[in-house]
Amino acid sequence: MVVLKAASPPVPSVNKINNGFPCSNGTIKPLITPSPSSFINLDQGDPEVFRSYWRKKSEECTVVINGEDLMSYLSDTSNVCWFMLPELREAIQRLHRVVGNASAGMDKHIVVGTGSTQLFQAALFALSPSDSPIPINVVAASPYYSEYKDEVEILRSGLYRWGGDAREYDKNEEYIEVVTAPNNPCGSIRRAVANCEGEGRVIHDLAYYWPQYTPITQQYDHDLMLFTFSKCTGHAGSRIGWAIVKDIEVARKMTRFIHMSSIGVSKESQTRVAKIIGVICDSYQEIGSSLDPDELFFEYSRRKLRERWEKLRAVVDKSNLFSLAKYSKAYCTFTNHTSESYPAFAWMKCKGSIEDCESYLRNLKVLVRGGKRFGVDQKYARVSLLSGDDVFNEFLTRISNATRNRE
Amino acid sequence: MVVLKAASPPVPSVNKINNGFPCSNGTIKPLITPSPSSFINLDQGDPEVFRSYWRKKSEECTVVINGEDLMSYLSDTSNVCWFMLPELREAIQRLHRVVGNASAGMDKHIVVGTGSTQLFQAALFALSPSDSPIPINVVAASPYYSEYKDEVEILRSGLYRWGGDAREYDKNEEYIEVVTAPNNPCGSIRRAVANCEGEGRVIHDLAYYWPQYTPITQQYDHDLMLFTFSKCTGHAGSRIGWAIVKDIEVARKMTRFIHMSSIGVSKESQTRVAKIIGVICDSYQEIGSSLDPDELFFEYSRRKLRERWEKLRAVVDKSNLFSLAKYSKAYCTFTNHTSESYPAFAWMKCKGSIEDCESYLRNLKVLVRGGKRFGVDQKYARVSLLSGDDVFNEFLTRISNATRNRE
Repeated sequence: MVVLKAASPPVPSVNKINNGFPCSNGTIKPLITPSPSSFINLDQGDPEVFRSYWRKKSEECTVVINGEDLMSYLSDTSNVCWFMLPELREAIQRLHRVVGNASAGMDKHIVVGTGSTQLFQAALFALSPSDSPIPINVVAASPYYSEYKDEVEILRSGLYRWGGDAREYDKNEEYIEVVTAPNNPCGSIRRAVANCEGEGRVIHDLAYYWPQYTPITQQYDHDLMLFTFSKCTGHAGSRIGWAIVKDIEVARKMTRFIHMSSIGVSKESQTRVAKIIGVICDSYQEIGSSLDPDELFFEYSRRKLRERWEKLRAVVDKSNLFSLAKYSKAYCTFTNHTSESYPAFAWMKCKGSIEDCESYLRNLKVLVRGGKRFGVDQKYARVSLLSGDDVFNEFLTRISNATRNRE
Repeated sequence: MVVLKAASPPVPSVNKINNGFPCSNGTIKPLITPSPSSFINLDQGDPEVFRSYWRKKSEECTVVINGEDLMSYLSDTSNVCWFMLPELREAIQRLHRVVGNASAGMDKHIVVGTGSTQLFQAALFALSPSDSPIPINVVAASPYYSEYKDEVEILRSGLYRWGGDAREYDKNEEYIEVVTAPNNPCGSIRRAVANCEGEGRVIHDLAYYWPQYTPITQQYDHDLMLFTFSKCTGHAGSRIGWAIVKDIEVARKMTRFIHMSSIGVSKESQTRVAKIIGVICDSYQEIGSSLDPDELFFEYSRRKLRERWEKLRAVVDKSNLFSLAKYSKAYCTFTNHTSESYPAFAWMKCKGSIEDCESYLRNLKVLVRGGKRFGVDQKYARVSLLSGDDVFNEFLTRISNATRNRE
């Protein structure tokens, strides 16, 4: 028997551009570089923008975990999702009551996952027919989140396969449609669009349906809704997401998938997320809105994003290089005000003779994700607005300079 | 389009026997019940046996996590496994140096996972040929860990498929062999056994290769080795495992899988595991062996397991119902003593007319996992020895009583 040979040089690996980190296509990209000559990374959505809020609240959110705590695989054996801590379930229910963005009451089943990425795969598993000889098609309307396709295809599953753009889907077969609302990359609010004779099952990915990104116009009550703490508060390192599920059998199958995939979800993360959600809800419920708005998380974070969008639009409006979508105003039931959307990403379109937005920005040493990854034209690119302040400001400087140089 | 209908009664779900929890086949089983009339669960391996040690060390192992800590997706962008905290990597390397059970030096790549369950699947992905039209066979010598088969088959992957017992594998095709050493369920030390003309790649699952379970006879240096903190210390709720990998391309593909599966691993768990490993290593390195042996984790935990095995063998020896394997003694390079193995599970064989060990024990209200799940005869069953003291003692009482009743 031949066993796998070790590759020779065990050197620290990876090509890097400056302070590099890996992007989803396996290459390495830089992180934070205020220096004008270096690359800046607006490809990933590492949510640094909210850090300044959590710095102020750092002690209030502290968790202390002792050596004997949280040792068991099990959390709540009376619940379908037996590895979910009861305090996390209660915190999630409370957060949705406070924000009013989704119905998560006692008639729903909550399943916790290692980020909503794991839950997306659990949902595919749960919604795929187990007795079909052919895989079910998974579709999403373009531009769709760039990772869905790879996540569907990575293991060449016989249960499901990537079916492409939901608007073009016309097979007379069962399918799963993923609806991202607000949409990543483009920020628009969406509904299921696939229109064919096959039976459709819908996964609603509501990662960005929080008041800092978009007006909360209604309390969603879909069959299967996904949320992630990463985008809600910026605590991406905790890897906590949750699904709100109507059908207990679907919740059971999702739980089974997470059992087989990782025998549950970190309890340290669960307990910390419950604590932080509690701090957010307390600030709204106990202290009330008489407080300095900057003390309230969604107020603070919406102000940060609004300021960024205003600065970005001012720069883009002066530019002959790009255009940005306009978002219509809507009444937000959470703030009781009418306001615009301030999406986590700018979906930029190059003007005139520029054919490839990603390459154009790469020449400015700005790393972004091009339209092709989202199933559309390369005139588009997605630019993260969640970076730290210095990176965001450097981005504005570079596109201002490029505008001037082109004049 | 028809969307999935919600199932009607949103009741708290699941059938229960007493204080129930779900077992791997989807049914619900009880947890801790000192009462003689109730079920006791020795099916799963929830490692309660070490809790008394961590209770004593609880404060020393405390971690404090503030609101601003651990927010990013990224940990160490210069490392192949970019989501692994550097302090965890260093702690893992230090632990293997102290114990001497595996080579994890600077010439190896460490990949952290959400338990070794996620890493097993990452390893399958990394070792499967990406360009083959047919899935590679995954084999293991029976009795094999009961979950491998389901984990391989759950998504009907086109990359790999379950190939059954490694000893019977005779195809002239590439294959992956999983070697569990010491073996779960039976505690024996194993080597790769598949013997055919195809090219084999080996995953060594070393979850139980720690001094409390078995003498450390050599420092393993295999191509791909898996460990889990759950079985090392009993902190199963943290969901931390790690792989030690020689080939950087394999490490990269495993990292890619975990990226696609969950965009990394809980940082709260990583930081806590690093802390606890530090406490263990400090007690061996700084304080030395002059200390009360019960202050040293592996000494304490080996004593606990030795006492259980001695009690269990005394009861079984008197019994006409069961037999247990004998383990040969070996010199342990960690303790510098010759000693027996004290496996985490008892692999019991029914004697005489009892044909189905699991059913026989279920009649005694003891839940265990029958031989069929491990690919062998139902005269065998796996009994967890990692429960709390009260459950273990109740188990001994029940088999003693059954012996008397049969006389």
